[in-house]
Amino acid sequence: MKNKIKVVGVDADDTLWVNQPYFDDAENTYASIMAPYISEDKLLRELLNTQSRNIPIYGYGVKSFVLSMIETACLLSHNKIDAASIQSIIKIGKDIFSKQVELLDHVDDVLKNLKERYRLILMTKGDLLDQKRKLHQSRLKNHFHHVEVMSNKAEEDYAAVFKRNAIVAEEFMMIGNSMKSDIIPVLNLGAYAMHVPYHATWVHEVSQEDLEHPKLLRAESIKAIMNIL
Amino acid sequence: MKNKIKVVGVDADDTLWVNQPYFDDAENTYASIMAPYISEDKLLRELLNTQSRNIPIYGYGVKSFVLSMIETACLLSHNKIDAASIQSIIKIGKDIFSKQVELLDHVDDVLKNLKERYRLILMTKGDLLDQKRKLHQSRLKNHFHHVEVMSNKAEEDYAAVFKRNAIVAEEFMMIGNSMKSDIIPVLNLGAYAMHVPYHATWVHEVSQEDLEHPKLLRAESIKAIMNIL
Repeated sequence: MKNKIKVVGVDADDTLWVNQPYFDDAENTYASIMAPYISEDKLLRELLNTQSRNIPIYGYGVKSFVLSMIETACLLSHNKIDAASIQSIIKIGKDIFSKQVELLDHVDDVLKNLKERYRLILMTKGDLLDQKRKLHQSRLKNHFHHVEVMSNKAEEDYAAVFKRNAIVAEEFMMIGNSMKSDIIPVLNLGAYAMHVPYHATWVHEVSQEDLEHPKLLRAESIKAIMNIL
Repeated sequence: MKNKIKVVGVDADDTLWVNQPYFDDAENTYASIMAPYISEDKLLRELLNTQSRNIPIYGYGVKSFVLSMIETACLLSHNKIDAASIQSIIKIGKDIFSKQVELLDHVDDVLKNLKERYRLILMTKGDLLDQKRKLHQSRLKNHFHHVEVMSNKAEEDYAAVFKRNAIVAEEFMMIGNSMKSDIIPVLNLGAYAMHVPYHATWVHEVSQEDLEHPKLLRAESIKAIMNIL
């Protein structure tokens, strides 16, 4: 495998830096705002429905999340939610945007090492500006030969990136925490993948967690890639 | 000039297809929702302030616009705005996302012709997913060698695109409707620019409309580029 691979793709959120815990905290705050109207359980189930409905229109990222929280708040409160609460929901989003980027363990060393020997590409989805902000803050930008902010990470999106960057699927390995977005689509295209799960995963990203596949590796930490590549 | 230029950049919104009129209509609808609380004049002035404050956080695009409308509605109504009205504001945004792309005159022919003789790059800012949707609907994607969705269009953003794509500024011409985003930054970098104004311009984009510069051309229609390149 080591001799075959020429290009390594790396996911960002919850692979290089903390992300999902901020959304989990945000949902807790949201639930406390909505407590007068509905239980946390029902609220978060309905929020997920709203998000799933809105993602084809809004895409991924914080703004999409905030708009879906506001929409769900209006619906579930039967339009009784007051404007001060709406402002608090807007503030939840702004607070996420203001979080300082927190790198996960070993990320800096592993990327530096990989860049010397492979074409290294950051492949992330979400808000363009927000990902740019996080990449800048992380000081990891120069660790990559190239950065792709993708509107989605389905098979066709990877295929488009491969084509645009002249990447041969059989020479590519993707590293990431999401089976749905980082692993399954690239395996389907004939590439290799290394799944590094994170302790928190958005329900929307959970998919075939126990999949077995000859080109799929699993590790507890991104550091494990050093034993393979 | 004709012999010097090798790469042509083209803006999308209000250069290739209708955009600003949808936002103008949206503001009218917004003003009618807010009429019980505030005059249209004051409302739109304050909305622009909110947008200017939020753009460094949210970036450009429809979601950013909707979040700023909601925030402004809460503020200017002194939190008296009801949730049904908030839902109507969310709908304004979804309506913009559902607009069918409407190409401006001559766009299709001009791009086809340019692509045969120049490296042609679409350079647009806004929501990644929304620009992708519009490009797909427009059927113009194959008219371009390359597409750049940019989080902003300041001088440093163009410089980064030039570097990434090995573009020499003196061999580049940008075509667009916004002096602020399409023309001034590339002139400052030493490139050529053709300003094709559109009848509607967002106040935030208005800048040095009567600038004179040896590398700046002006035209009523994108078709005029055929007399130059």
